[in-house]
Amino acid sequence: MNFNITALDRSLASVLQARLDSRTKPPGSLGRLEALALQAGLIQRSERPQLLAPRMVVFAGDHGAAKAGVSAFPQEVTVQMVANFRAGGAAINVLSRQAGLAMSVVDAGVASACFGPAQSEVEFIDAKLAPGTANFIERAAMSAEQCEAAMDCGAELLRKWHAAGCNAIGFGEMGIGNTASASLITHALADLPLAEIIGRGTGLDDAGLQRKRELLSRAAARVAGRALAPLDVLAEFGGFEIAMMTGAYLAAAEARMLIVVDGFIATAALLVAHALQPAVLDYCVFSHCSAEPGHQRQLAFLGVEPVLALDLRLGEGSGAALVFPIIRSALALMNDMAGFADAGVSNK
Amino acid sequence: MNFNITALDRSLASVLQARLDSRTKPPGSLGRLEALALQAGLIQRSERPQLLAPRMVVFAGDHGAAKAGVSAFPQEVTVQMVANFRAGGAAINVLSRQAGLAMSVVDAGVASACFGPAQSEVEFIDAKLAPGTANFIERAAMSAEQCEAAMDCGAELLRKWHAAGCNAIGFGEMGIGNTASASLITHALADLPLAEIIGRGTGLDDAGLQRKRELLSRAAARVAGRALAPLDVLAEFGGFEIAMMTGAYLAAAEARMLIVVDGFIATAALLVAHALQPAVLDYCVFSHCSAEPGHQRQLAFLGVEPVLALDLRLGEGSGAALVFPIIRSALALMNDMAGFADAGVSNK
Repeated sequence: MNFNITALDRSLASVLQARLDSRTKPPGSLGRLEALALQAGLIQRSERPQLLAPRMVVFAGDHGAAKAGVSAFPQEVTVQMVANFRAGGAAINVLSRQAGLAMSVVDAGVASACFGPAQSEVEFIDAKLAPGTANFIERAAMSAEQCEAAMDCGAELLRKWHAAGCNAIGFGEMGIGNTASASLITHALADLPLAEIIGRGTGLDDAGLQRKRELLSRAAARVAGRALAPLDVLAEFGGFEIAMMTGAYLAAAEARMLIVVDGFIATAALLVAHALQPAVLDYCVFSHCSAEPGHQRQLAFLGVEPVLALDLRLGEGSGAALVFPIIRSALALMNDMAGFADAGVSNK
Repeated sequence: MNFNITALDRSLASVLQARLDSRTKPPGSLGRLEALALQAGLIQRSERPQLLAPRMVVFAGDHGAAKAGVSAFPQEVTVQMVANFRAGGAAINVLSRQAGLAMSVVDAGVASACFGPAQSEVEFIDAKLAPGTANFIERAAMSAEQCEAAMDCGAELLRKWHAAGCNAIGFGEMGIGNTASASLITHALADLPLAEIIGRGTGLDDAGLQRKRELLSRAAARVAGRALAPLDVLAEFGGFEIAMMTGAYLAAAEARMLIVVDGFIATAALLVAHALQPAVLDYCVFSHCSAEPGHQRQLAFLGVEPVLALDLRLGEGSGAALVFPIIRSALALMNDMAGFADAGVSNK
């Protein structure tokens, strides 16, 4: 796995800002939208950045730990929700349609076979590495070979979409138990106390939250004292959906795509990618701050600001989908607004 | 001026929440989007709320005080920007197109005649009450009769759009000097210290901000000790665009339309409407918190939470336009998501 990711060359920034400042508005008055337009311009090395064939990809996988009781919902919900994605009835289907995003669903490692009616507009990809991971409370979730295969698969998929003309991508995920996985990855890579980054996930009650805390403490204790490289962390605690997403982030940044990052689990995968190649961050828009408490800590660790704060805690890529219309508007402002001279408007 | 605005009947809320909770997602996991869907459902008294013919209306007017030096831009920019709106080149044109909003521009009282190429898609309404207000630093900005005429005109326009099938509306404004007007209105109606609600507007430097503070202190001192009713405040310090917007808010709430509130100036107009009829708030979505410092204070006074915080300080309705896709997504989730039973997904 070799990714050639270059940090953004900021020498174009003054040209891009000059274009923004010559539009008919007070300088800087479009706030965060100007920063988004600038970032997209730097990524695309263009004064006229555009979203081309933007896509939402939902990676789905099961976690052995789910059966130990780390989630409010039973493991069967993962495969049921994949069927729901294929049928077009889930939140991310609705939000992707609203945002004008093509949508793909990837079976990265769901515990049972993924059937269900396929809507023609939703691409389904069978990339099942195994029927769920091993229980990371007791042992490594996956082997080093599985981890590398998952990352390769995610990267390959990205390259395929990029080759087909896509230059902007959002990632979502589905996997009962995967906030537990994300907490352990975040604990290991962002050096945050486990207690601060374990939340209720899909809706654990107090007793469930206490059980989740105990189980994850056991999982963390299992590797205590070992110096884990980023890929070791991913193999120990990851899910196949998270490992695929990690490879996909790196390939997307290598291809100079604009990456829209969703919530807690998507950011956990990004922590792995970032540990391997910090420049991946230059290509990321952080869509929202989730209600899952660990997400805010992850964003602070990375030193980044989310665009939205809508108290979402759904996953699936929902926050990422919601920010696409805002990015699209930011680019349209840069491209389509009149300049002071052309519009005959007096400048300050 | 008699508006019959009824507070929302919340007895339907449990039915609406039950519909949201039966969609294929953990309860409450869509956060703020669920609150938006619920509010729209209560306004429309429907489990299937929809945006019909949504529209952005920009009210433009000039302020006599602009010539005293309360803005970074010259007064001519108001009429120049109206021409820009008509030609389709301003930020609000771009954002309205992106959000799928029809757009109207109203000359409420621009100082010079409004010419300029009209884009067929932008409706222009000549409702000029006078070529700008009087200088409110020295005397009342308008007469009581003018104030009432402006409010009537705004209300009439709203009723016209509503009769044509529009059920959701955003208001923007253009008027060099109108953050000064909004600061004085806010000071009077929200009982906030003037120093905390005077900002740089379109971009005053330190000296300009100091001058603005001195001028507005003189304006406020001019009426000190008088007990002003809300309409007195509006006539003393308002602009024609602000008075029209005030009437438009009240008529929109009376017609049970969903109202999307923009930034500092739009919220100042709402403060007047709210002082007259507090129930108007039930129909309002607060789109964003602006970078103009007084806006946050206004929102706190009203006890409301904005959806976005993008550091905008443009006006024109820009924040309102940006939130429409989020509202549309919230309603689409309520309407189009599959239920647990239909999708064969196990509930908690």
